[in-house]
Amino acid sequence: MENTIEILDTSLRDGAQGEGITFSVRDKLAVVKALDALGVTWIEAGNPGSNPKDAEFFRLAAELKLEHARLCAFGSTRKKGVRYEDDKQLQSLLDANTEAVTIFGKSSYLHVTQVLMVEPAENLAMIGDTVAFLKQHGRFVIYDAEHFFDGFAENVDYALSTLKTALDAGADRIVLCDTNGGAFPDAIEQGVKVALSVVSDTASGVIIGIHAHNDSDLATANSLTAVKAGCCHVQGTLLGFGERCGNTALGSLIPSLELKLGLHCLPLGKLEHISTICRQIAEIANVSMPNMPYVGSHAFAHKAGMHADGILKLRSSFEHIDPTLVGNDRRFLMSEVGGRSAIAERARKLDPSLTKEHPVVSALAIRLKSLEADGWQFEGADGSFELLVRRELGRYQPLFKIIAYRVVTEHPNGEAIACSHAWAKVLVDGQDDIAAAEGDGPVNALDGALRRALKRFYPELEQMRLTDYKVRVIDGRDATAARVRVLIESTDGQRTWSTVGVSADIIDASRAALVDSIEYKLIGDIERRFKAYLT
Amino acid sequence: MENTIEILDTSLRDGAQGEGITFSVRDKLAVVKALDALGVTWIEAGNPGSNPKDAEFFRLAAELKLEHARLCAFGSTRKKGVRYEDDKQLQSLLDANTEAVTIFGKSSYLHVTQVLMVEPAENLAMIGDTVAFLKQHGRFVIYDAEHFFDGFAENVDYALSTLKTALDAGADRIVLCDTNGGAFPDAIEQGVKVALSVVSDTASGVIIGIHAHNDSDLATANSLTAVKAGCCHVQGTLLGFGERCGNTALGSLIPSLELKLGLHCLPLGKLEHISTICRQIAEIANVSMPNMPYVGSHAFAHKAGMHADGILKLRSSFEHIDPTLVGNDRRFLMSEVGGRSAIAERARKLDPSLTKEHPVVSALAIRLKSLEADGWQFEGADGSFELLVRRELGRYQPLFKIIAYRVVTEHPNGEAIACSHAWAKVLVDGQDDIAAAEGDGPVNALDGALRRALKRFYPELEQMRLTDYKVRVIDGRDATAARVRVLIESTDGQRTWSTVGVSADIIDASRAALVDSIEYKLIGDIERRFKAYLT
Repeated sequence: MENTIEILDTSLRDGAQGEGITFSVRDKLAVVKALDALGVTWIEAGNPGSNPKDAEFFRLAAELKLEHARLCAFGSTRKKGVRYEDDKQLQSLLDANTEAVTIFGKSSYLHVTQVLMVEPAENLAMIGDTVAFLKQHGRFVIYDAEHFFDGFAENVDYALSTLKTALDAGADRIVLCDTNGGAFPDAIEQGVKVALSVVSDTASGVIIGIHAHNDSDLATANSLTAVKAGCCHVQGTLLGFGERCGNTALGSLIPSLELKLGLHCLPLGKLEHISTICRQIAEIANVSMPNMPYVGSHAFAHKAGMHADGILKLRSSFEHIDPTLVGNDRRFLMSEVGGRSAIAERARKLDPSLTKEHPVVSALAIRLKSLEADGWQFEGADGSFELLVRRELGRYQPLFKIIAYRVVTEHPNGEAIACSHAWAKVLVDGQDDIAAAEGDGPVNALDGALRRALKRFYPELEQMRLTDYKVRVIDGRDATAARVRVLIESTDGQRTWSTVGVSADIIDASRAALVDSIEYKLIGDIERRFKAYLT
Repeated sequence: MENTIEILDTSLRDGAQGEGITFSVRDKLAVVKALDALGVTWIEAGNPGSNPKDAEFFRLAAELKLEHARLCAFGSTRKKGVRYEDDKQLQSLLDANTEAVTIFGKSSYLHVTQVLMVEPAENLAMIGDTVAFLKQHGRFVIYDAEHFFDGFAENVDYALSTLKTALDAGADRIVLCDTNGGAFPDAIEQGVKVALSVVSDTASGVIIGIHAHNDSDLATANSLTAVKAGCCHVQGTLLGFGERCGNTALGSLIPSLELKLGLHCLPLGKLEHISTICRQIAEIANVSMPNMPYVGSHAFAHKAGMHADGILKLRSSFEHIDPTLVGNDRRFLMSEVGGRSAIAERARKLDPSLTKEHPVVSALAIRLKSLEADGWQFEGADGSFELLVRRELGRYQPLFKIIAYRVVTEHPNGEAIACSHAWAKVLVDGQDDIAAAEGDGPVNALDGALRRALKRFYPELEQMRLTDYKVRVIDGRDATAARVRVLIESTDGQRTWSTVGVSADIIDASRAALVDSIEYKLIGDIERRFKAYLT
């Protein structure tokens, strides 16, 4: 086990093969910048031969000034029976003009004969020719041995001969892929050890890597096993998305490698940015990652009262690492199973003098209990909880009032599609305004009308947008007359916050969550802008 | 490694400690039925001592006729310095009247002295007393050794003495917990092996179990390691939700144990229902699980064209197992090859002659695929699925039409509470009628208006009522403009059925589900009443 592990992030290539993942060229450039800020070694950024958008991306990416990371283009070995200098795909890889090129070739005899349908010897020639061609053109060549572990199990000699061919042709990295994600750690360990012995016989300076998939929920375990067995290059995607069940989630693996195995994956001081960078990429890729180990918002969220109580006595009692090491936060979820210690802990963010015994904390505990009995829930609504604390502390004044609103959804005679529209009338500092909007649904229409009415008073609402909207019927027994809880997540590009609303009426519950969301944004802005006057 | 592995599902206890997870009593009963249908050995269903809702649940659960699973109540050892017969929490565990009780006790010296703050000897007495007390009352006792692996690393003698105490007092199962989720597989293997030697010295018939958490993304790997080292009891939650990053996801672990290690976890023939049951529980818990290995909708979804092409030449080329073994479907994300056997199976309820090759089944497969792409889901909507089959079979004619409707939610000047009202105009057999209703929310108002308008034509709708209403935002990315899926459950006192509606507009999605629900009721009644004329 070496001390330094190279990280290759393939969010923009294998990641983009995940269901629901698509990146525009702008998105891709933003992901590259974020990964560079984290300090990964390699960014496998696209497949220029299969995607014209990727060719444009590589042209623009060449102009980025990257501090840590180096770019790779990804492609396959030359086509069967084609001279490499006539292979358009190989030409497009050169045109991408990246420092490195990742080439995947077939290691499985079964795949060569039944899927690729070429002679085993021609497959070896395809591997050797392609690697040699790219080396001649000065590229750093990362060779991905596709289906290596399956091939190793079926026909070990052929699988190893593909590695030898790539090594003989000058490959700089040999990456063993568990393409189908079905291998178990013991098979990974065995495959890596044998591959390592081949490398040390053939080209002793070459580093071996691992590329695992999560189809057996073992991508992280397999990558850890491979590293322990001698791999010094790990491929994955920061958030784990990728083909089928995804790739190794580097955001969960890197902290284990650094904090628990004492290895170096990122430049010094970068690990504490990993949670923030994961959230940035989640935002760009439009995925949600709350349960992710180490970096997700649930990773250090304590719900059981006994857990919260334990943490306050002994940090390590219910946390396997200190969350600040990965830039994450401890959260005490405000729920019926939580207690006053947890409330005080969170309220101290607003007023550090608050203790568990403070009357404001007692008042908050009582208020929380009665709100929860009515169906409110603050564990996923930090913004609304902060407003609640402010109200108890007297550090709150309403910034606007909705005087009236009306939301209409109708399916007028002859129309095939329902339509929604709304108006809202607001009062701000003695002045009122009214605005109307159409929407894709009643809540979307109300949101639009409300912001338009407030725009004159608070132009900064322009930057704010909703990023998530969740509805939960609290008790299904009364069916459509049941109470409804709405959770909203909002962002202004810099901060992200969530708010909650509850009502028997879904529109009114949404209205409550929207109002909290807007107030939270405005109060935060005021406190930052007018700091000098407020303290 | 034994051949049979006991599965304990704690979705309703540790699972309910996950952020955003809450169950009503009805939800809990539905989860118990689903887990029983899957055939898990134990269902740890709640903590009656800490939650009055759980006491009510256990009273109702006692009346369920379970085929495979047995219920456990969960609680802690007696309080320090209290006689066990005076401990209210222990009494509530007995009152739950379950076959088994899970008791957690502290195995870590550090926790005993710094969190629980009792003398190490008193902690042992608390463990021994509690286990003995429950055994005296005829309970099967599952002893959870909380923080076992951390305790084992800190003070091995004390950790093992807690196990011995539980064994001496008669515990039937000793479950080793990685409560903080920080352990690596090598530590798990070592701990299990030493614990096994303690058991074989003390009480050789007792089975050892594992309870892993996913804070290092290793819960599955740790559980597999523990099983290989000799554990024959595995705790987790079917979908993996639970405190912080969650528990071992049994839905991903069980297929590995059965298909790859050749172990028996479920009764014969049940594994092929695991995907369906996971989806049922996901619907109840309102969580999404597309990326889950084996059972998620992405698990066998092929996006890269080359992968789809490979699959069509050789099934195993990009799939580590045959998806039908776990009742999942292969999906080609850009094409329309579907799971026809499953469709045929369900359609045969209406027409027993339908085979997989029947043109109606082919047409249904295509229709279903396009509806699913639009966000529809029929897993939890048998009523809507039956209507879909009827339409393809030509055994359907619309019984009414909504010509127009309008739903208004408003907060008029001066009023403190929003109010909703609606009107709907329907056409039945050439005659129309219109009616209006107020409601507790827009959907409730629309439901009322619709039934009133239809009452003249179909008085039997009087007996029908909605029993559950669920809303799911399908894709949170566009926030309030996202698509919404509404699931409705209805009953007429004799039958219960569920229907689904999807739209960008929540009102219109509800309207679609309401219409299906009413049609399903009316068609069933007609077929029963006029049987003689219809066949």
